[in-house]
Amino acid sequence: MIKIQSLIKSTLVLSLFPAMAQAAPKNVIYMIGDGMGPAYLSAYRYYMDDPKTKKVESTIYDQLWVGVATTYPDDDTIVTDSAAGATALSTRNKSYNGAISVDHDHKPLTTMLEIAKAKGMKTGIVATSQINHATPAAFMAHNKTRKAYNEIADDYVDNKVNGQFVADVMFGGGITYFERKDRNLSNEFKQAGFQYANTWQDFAKISKAPAMAVLAPVGFPSALDNPVADPLATMTDKALKLLSNNKNGFVVMIEGSQIDWCGHANDIACAMAEMHDFAKAIKVAKDYVDAHPDTILVITADHETGGLSLGADGIYAWDRDVIKKVKQTAPLIAKSLVNAAPADLAKVWAAQTGLTATATELTLLTQKITLVKPEIAKVDFNKVEDPMEVEAGLLEPLANEIKQLIDHYSKTGWTSGAHTAIDVPVLAWGKQRQDFAGFQDNTDIATKLVQYIEKR
Amino acid sequence: MIKIQSLIKSTLVLSLFPAMAQAAPKNVIYMIGDGMGPAYLSAYRYYMDDPKTKKVESTIYDQLWVGVATTYPDDDTIVTDSAAGATALSTRNKSYNGAISVDHDHKPLTTMLEIAKAKGMKTGIVATSQINHATPAAFMAHNKTRKAYNEIADDYVDNKVNGQFVADVMFGGGITYFERKDRNLSNEFKQAGFQYANTWQDFAKISKAPAMAVLAPVGFPSALDNPVADPLATMTDKALKLLSNNKNGFVVMIEGSQIDWCGHANDIACAMAEMHDFAKAIKVAKDYVDAHPDTILVITADHETGGLSLGADGIYAWDRDVIKKVKQTAPLIAKSLVNAAPADLAKVWAAQTGLTATATELTLLTQKITLVKPEIAKVDFNKVEDPMEVEAGLLEPLANEIKQLIDHYSKTGWTSGAHTAIDVPVLAWGKQRQDFAGFQDNTDIATKLVQYIEKR
Repeated sequence: MIKIQSLIKSTLVLSLFPAMAQAAPKNVIYMIGDGMGPAYLSAYRYYMDDPKTKKVESTIYDQLWVGVATTYPDDDTIVTDSAAGATALSTRNKSYNGAISVDHDHKPLTTMLEIAKAKGMKTGIVATSQINHATPAAFMAHNKTRKAYNEIADDYVDNKVNGQFVADVMFGGGITYFERKDRNLSNEFKQAGFQYANTWQDFAKISKAPAMAVLAPVGFPSALDNPVADPLATMTDKALKLLSNNKNGFVVMIEGSQIDWCGHANDIACAMAEMHDFAKAIKVAKDYVDAHPDTILVITADHETGGLSLGADGIYAWDRDVIKKVKQTAPLIAKSLVNAAPADLAKVWAAQTGLTATATELTLLTQKITLVKPEIAKVDFNKVEDPMEVEAGLLEPLANEIKQLIDHYSKTGWTSGAHTAIDVPVLAWGKQRQDFAGFQDNTDIATKLVQYIEKR
Repeated sequence: MIKIQSLIKSTLVLSLFPAMAQAAPKNVIYMIGDGMGPAYLSAYRYYMDDPKTKKVESTIYDQLWVGVATTYPDDDTIVTDSAAGATALSTRNKSYNGAISVDHDHKPLTTMLEIAKAKGMKTGIVATSQINHATPAAFMAHNKTRKAYNEIADDYVDNKVNGQFVADVMFGGGITYFERKDRNLSNEFKQAGFQYANTWQDFAKISKAPAMAVLAPVGFPSALDNPVADPLATMTDKALKLLSNNKNGFVVMIEGSQIDWCGHANDIACAMAEMHDFAKAIKVAKDYVDAHPDTILVITADHETGGLSLGADGIYAWDRDVIKKVKQTAPLIAKSLVNAAPADLAKVWAAQTGLTATATELTLLTQKITLVKPEIAKVDFNKVEDPMEVEAGLLEPLANEIKQLIDHYSKTGWTSGAHTAIDVPVLAWGKQRQDFAGFQDNTDIATKLVQYIEKR
């Protein structure tokens, strides 16, 4: 009886996700939405919904959606950081929070790009953060701490696989770390034959791999504030073109880096703009797979950020229309309010948020402006190292008030300025997408992708 | 070129979830975890994890997990209530919040059990709420408002399909509504040949369908507080036995009703106990499918409740051990504290929660006890209609304090006392489980199940 039972069980499991005896894909496009927990996908769908139709339209995330993954790190916290998350997604091994592809003894864990490079594949990383930030770093470098930005950047040159650079294509932010006084890594890349850009104008001229572009001092401006349209889609398109047509295939990691940053800031308009930027990059990748069926596209997140909820404070509603009218991230709205003449405050508020401020709200905003304005006046921004960050810090009390009002009217909830341990979505496209269906651990995703790579 | 592209696309879609040319299943087990958003599944896994092993063990939820579903109702709120959610899951049609299987014009929408009964199938509902609560009601009755409990209960007798009762088996709570002075529905069921129980002793004697058991005045005690072990698994087991061996098959809806109630109360220990109760019932159902491969098991939720997050307030951790030591739901802990001698307060607190109270915490608890104790003393509980509810209401300030401390130490976050619009998990087991894989609307789940039923 027991034998018959287990036979039935195995048959059921087998029939669900049949092994399709397909060749391993030649190319791997691996996209990571940093902080992109499941509520972000739900939120983005309602945010994008066409109000003229009764049915809520599905998004590209929904259409590619096949599974979920756990994210817990190798310690007893359950809640991972981006370094441990990316280490798992890159090396197939869990480690401690803060680890960049090293184990508890700080020994290197081989990264997916190192494995790919050893197999003669082309490799790349694309991010909207600095390219030596935790997620891309875990594909390129080894460090006991994610905070060692300069050491990690050095590794992008020094860490070699059979004498070769780990990546053929590196696009993102980080001029500060690659054009340093103590070591100019950009020059080293150029001398090694890399095409190089540190402006979007020069980026447009990049025509072949190897290539590097660092297009912002640190991270990119937030997608909501960025005058450059579709930065991630543009970089994704070029990366795929540069990596294509290689007989051994390619592996590229593309990160929607700042979904997480908006989550940390609890800024819902910021988060939706990042989800939109990431969605456009996914569309580019999906189109590539449709045109190159020997490619697998896998998309996941390293963790959720912020404890986002659609609906809050006992109210059965979420109002996307409020969010759609917000023009900038909270620090920039705050700056606009600080710079507004007191008589224009209500007008500037309405222009920035689409909301009509009540008398009480205007008083609250004025109180915060009165608080932060003299602090900002004290600073000589020519003399500080990171003027944008210093200014954002000083504007924070006002920015927080702004976000609370937007959350209140949109009924958006947050539980944390940090990460949470909810399972994250797994999306896939291509012939092998069923390999990523159902429930899995974050290390399982890396294991499956490395299995493809090892068949090269 | 376009034609080739779309050919490739169709091939991809088809190869993911191949149509398996299988016969429609004969029996349908449809389980609804009310309020069971995705964070509840993550939380339950870590809550159940064996701390002696490095790997976090997967739960039965994880093992059956195949898809997600949207939950939005047919109005502009995006956030559904349980009535609109269950109407969608039962009738294939979205309606307004509060609707029990009626449309906006209050016209009846045919329920899944009505369709099954018309096909000569056996039918049943099982719940740990009163059986005329919103979710089971949307399978049995039609009403413009979920609040009309007596009218809905009347419908359980009056709403007939070809002269037959809609359900052959009804197990749950609700004596208050079925043994009323103005109409004794229980007697009507008995006269119509139903075996009947209103105690667990008599429930054990129920031997065949049709059968009805209402085993609590309203809802069951919370699973964490209930001296009856595994109430939902016990009822599920009997329902499946009674409905089995029918040549036309059966459809049964089994609800983990009170996951939602714990979510509304923002009581994490309460929620984990309900998830455990529901998991045991799922195990019974899964074993049934393994023994009867002509059965499909589908499990989902109507919505998420509470905006639950694992991790809160900027801390990268969730501490399940705190939650595992909590002995009762917050109102019962509150009652224990109110009844404790002041000198025993610290001891009783530790016994109830496993936590050692600081001096500040003891002062806070004492303040709340001093607040609620005289209010409770004023009430003659023999003279109020629902003494438990009245008492819980009076204990609320103290219960809230208790939950805040448990949340603080376990790093559990909540954003709301109501529902949220995050997509919910879809789990399935049986040969046709791939039909429920991937992204879908809540009405799609009902549509697929009704397609099976209509093939009877």
